[in-house]
Amino acid sequence: MTRLSAGRVSTVQEKQDGHEIRTIWLDDANDAAVVIDQTLLPGETRELRLRTPADFYDAIIRLAVRGAPAIGIAAAYGVYLAVKRLDTFDRSSFRKAVDGHCDYLNSSRPTAVNLKWALDRMKSVLERNIDKPVSELKSLLLLECESIAREDAEMCDAIGRATMALLRPGMGVLTHCNAGRLATGGIGTATAGIYLAEREGYGLRVYCDETRPLLQGARLTAYELSRAGTDTTLICDNMASFVMSKGLIDIVFTGCDRVAANGDIANKIGTLSVAISAKQYGIPFYICAPSSTVDFGCPSGEGIPIEERAGSEVTSLWYDKPIAPDGIKVRNPAFDVTPAEFITGIITEKGIVSPPYENNLRGALDKA
Amino acid sequence: MTRLSAGRVSTVQEKQDGHEIRTIWLDDANDAAVVIDQTLLPGETRELRLRTPADFYDAIIRLAVRGAPAIGIAAAYGVYLAVKRLDTFDRSSFRKAVDGHCDYLNSSRPTAVNLKWALDRMKSVLERNIDKPVSELKSLLLLECESIAREDAEMCDAIGRATMALLRPGMGVLTHCNAGRLATGGIGTATAGIYLAEREGYGLRVYCDETRPLLQGARLTAYELSRAGTDTTLICDNMASFVMSKGLIDIVFTGCDRVAANGDIANKIGTLSVAISAKQYGIPFYICAPSSTVDFGCPSGEGIPIEERAGSEVTSLWYDKPIAPDGIKVRNPAFDVTPAEFITGIITEKGIVSPPYENNLRGALDKA
Repeated sequence: MTRLSAGRVSTVQEKQDGHEIRTIWLDDANDAAVVIDQTLLPGETRELRLRTPADFYDAIIRLAVRGAPAIGIAAAYGVYLAVKRLDTFDRSSFRKAVDGHCDYLNSSRPTAVNLKWALDRMKSVLERNIDKPVSELKSLLLLECESIAREDAEMCDAIGRATMALLRPGMGVLTHCNAGRLATGGIGTATAGIYLAEREGYGLRVYCDETRPLLQGARLTAYELSRAGTDTTLICDNMASFVMSKGLIDIVFTGCDRVAANGDIANKIGTLSVAISAKQYGIPFYICAPSSTVDFGCPSGEGIPIEERAGSEVTSLWYDKPIAPDGIKVRNPAFDVTPAEFITGIITEKGIVSPPYENNLRGALDKA
Repeated sequence: MTRLSAGRVSTVQEKQDGHEIRTIWLDDANDAAVVIDQTLLPGETRELRLRTPADFYDAIIRLAVRGAPAIGIAAAYGVYLAVKRLDTFDRSSFRKAVDGHCDYLNSSRPTAVNLKWALDRMKSVLERNIDKPVSELKSLLLLECESIAREDAEMCDAIGRATMALLRPGMGVLTHCNAGRLATGGIGTATAGIYLAEREGYGLRVYCDETRPLLQGARLTAYELSRAGTDTTLICDNMASFVMSKGLIDIVFTGCDRVAANGDIANKIGTLSVAISAKQYGIPFYICAPSSTVDFGCPSGEGIPIEERAGSEVTSLWYDKPIAPDGIKVRNPAFDVTPAEFITGIITEKGIVSPPYENNLRGALDKA
């Protein structure tokens, strides 16, 4: 599987051959983080080299890098690269710089909690070692980035192994948005079980919601799964209930950007609708996410901030001309909150957590 | 309100000024039916002149004319224009020609029952008058087209009046696809109550689902409602549950293409998902359609044929480049079936029919 390693030499061609899609890595000189610009997929596979905090901020906000785990990894690299060449021996000013970059990058997107979690890890490694010289602090920050990325890949594998317990050969699986390789440093979260099952020859039938308005399902999930040889069918978001009503879906997996303490979750807009329909048809609906996505500081879904993006993403983006009348009002929430009552289970790298989430999430994750 | 009249002279500018959008009419010489090409809206308002049966078939199949009532009107005009210049005095060969054109046009789209209903009216007027000379039969066919169109406009008004009983000032209304002026010969079906309420200054807040993949909500409903001065907000289909969960929606109206005897309905793909979410949030969900949409010959939704259209409508149409990987499998059902259990009421020109539909539809409509 995909591993992020600072020193590995590879070309886009090598990296994008076969299953081995890589999402983010440091270049050989540790001078830039390289990402595949996801706004151009599936038509074009172009590398972006991110160096300055502004590069990272811009790449995150315009979704060249997206997916809660991948954003966390990117932000960590962003902090490291920002202070790597800082010419100071003064630990206090070094720390102030790190904190400033963390705050700046944390402000790029409000909903995913992994972003803050990854940046807090960077701050914390500094805190624990603040008596060491600046040169050593830089090395420790690099190691921490690498750990975040490596652990993310391991987390994906662990989610995949837990998910395998729910899969049977020939099942129909629905997924929404992209919580795949392209959203993580590994084999994805919602896709992890699919990738592992397909290696075992399960012959799953996967349905991807296209996921308006940014089309992550059509552009990214359909791309990475079909490329890996999985039987993949693209549908519009409004067809999910139709395929469910026809008995084509046995189980639903989505990723998520934040889990509240009571098991409410925020994920890509449209997840709520899929969850409501799945409940209507008695189809199990699972959330797949690293345990870092659980925010015990947030008691319920009502506390999760929902990013609202530009209306032009709905009316103009991707189109050869606008598809709505000039000046029309648009709502464009990027996420919605799915209440815990619709969620059959939450799959983290530590296993499957079942309701009642209020107790079971703490039980499963706190003792780690 | 809009009236279809064979002899009226008007330009696109006149017709498209203010509220008075016209969808289909005969030109002055009764030589062609004129329609606004709905594939070009909202960017361009272009008239199409339809003369031959192939013109009509093509316009219907590529959705230049769409909406169950409008398709019925168009098909009736198509039959009249096809036989208008038929150079024969032989009633039997004239009738054979009419029947042939009816069968051909009826095959253009399988789901909407109004198409067959309108064509059956054309056949039936011939049947009842087959002892009359061909020249008179031609006049009777023209009169029948005009009646179908006029009655459609009156039907819209009557649906609007019935719908008004459900509306209160300031309500939030959700609609899916376009069952508006552009789908009918009048003020629409799902939109009829909205237009009448707005004339009374109700200040409704209307949310339009964009309605993938053909974007009738974004291109047509948002266009005609915002043009009429209604507070109109465009959302992606997958945001309907979000706005419902936020308490922004008080009632849902959609059109429909066929009502089965048990109250199951077929309507634009995505209607099922809206209905399931409306039920989840306790929001009344109403179907608005002419009584000609009720097919007592069809016992339940399972008997309604669902048109499946080309996958390129999902992957390529409207876009400046394909938004999914080459060769990806696509499902593209144009309609779905919403079971009666999700439907609060069915509003026809004869009033509001409530469950149980099995009895009440016959009671309300059969005695007409």
